[in-house]
Amino acid sequence: MPLVRIDIPQHLPEHRIAALADAVHGALVETVDVPPTDRFQIITEHPPRRLVMDRTYFDVDRSADALVVHITFRRGRSEEKKRALYASLAARAEAIGIRPEDVMVVLQENTPVDWSFGAGIAQMAPAELVA
Amino acid sequence: MPLVRIDIPQHLPEHRIAALADAVHGALVETVDVPPTDRFQIITEHPPRRLVMDRTYFDVDRSADALVVHITFRRGRSEEKKRALYASLAARAEAIGIRPEDVMVVLQENTPVDWSFGAGIAQMAPAELVA
Amino acid sequence: MPLVRIDIPQHLPEHRIAALADAVHGALVETVDVPPTDRFQIITEHPPRRLVMDRTYFDVDRSADALVVHITFRRGRSEEKKRALYASLAARAEAIGIRPEDVMVVLQENTPVDWSFGAGIAQMAPAELVA
Repeated sequence: MPLVRIDIPQHLPEHRIAALADAVHGALVETVDVPPTDRFQIITEHPPRRLVMDRTYFDVDRSADALVVHITFRRGRSEEKKRALYASLAARAEAIGIRPEDVMVVLQENTPVDWSFGAGIAQMAPAELVA
Repeated sequence: MPLVRIDIPQHLPEHRIAALADAVHGALVETVDVPPTDRFQIITEHPPRRLVMDRTYFDVDRSADALVVHITFRRGRSEEKKRALYASLAARAEAIGIRPEDVMVVLQENTPVDWSFGAGIAQMAPAELVA
Repeated sequence: MPLVRIDIPQHLPEHRIAALADAVHGALVETVDVPPTDRFQIITEHPPRRLVMDRTYFDVDRSADALVVHITFRRGRSEEKKRALYASLAARAEAIGIRPEDVMVVLQENTPVDWSFGAGIAQMAPAELVA
């Protein structure tokens, strides 16, 4: 159910982009009850002046590699789970050579009937309910 | 009032892209009280590894043509209307040669004052209120 | 905290794009309590048939330069502040040669814990709270 928009600087190498996409999905599966096959990601590369990321806001030391992960999913995840998501993604980013300081995450919530996964219906399975 | 982001694989032919944009707008007008001239769409093409769409999630058989329609509109549409929107868009997609299984729809809601259609003001017309 | 997506026609000249990005940020700082260093913008250019903007909806006279500013920030801004944001952005656009009629703004809200500005945590500072 998540729809994930990942906006990155265009200079990231291909293998790192793929690893980042995997890292984001892995963190979602691990921490916020996303099924492994529930993967829908839109990745967009931007030239420098099109991805404007402040270098110091909130005392975070961002580099030219700073990127945004914008996740839409259903309402219902606890604050604790969201914090676990941020921590898991940061750890996974670091493991693939992306500085955790360069990973900004923004969450957006909607409701179960706001999703049609295709075929013209609103799929809502019990297995997808979040605690 | 809807703002519609349509993210598609780059191999779709031009005439199909135009027909898809028309289909999305037609479904919105038919099912969720969108005025015919209230059309604002952002269409973005992506190479294969930038649009990651699981092929089987929720038992939907997606192809390499799978795409995302991400719609932002005001709060207030009923579940019934949203389901009618999914069904109408699926039928319209099929009519133009796009498999309904390849059309994912995600809805996002906000409030009337969250829209400025230009000229520096928040336009809110009675005709736009939804039931 | 705002994440700002600016979608523009590809024919806008570079200096105007930069001025527009500054105008959007300036309006946010002036009217809705955004700190000056809290700047995160994703700017995307589109060919004509990929950015579909009705020319007359709501009696606004849009040109081929019409663009969208889609802002995500935390819940809590008053209607009055949102209206001030639209007015400020329109005035700033006009000052740099962009017609206010061509500036569409859409707001989207979430909550404080929905933001990680990097480093794997959810930053929430008192200074960021909005009235």
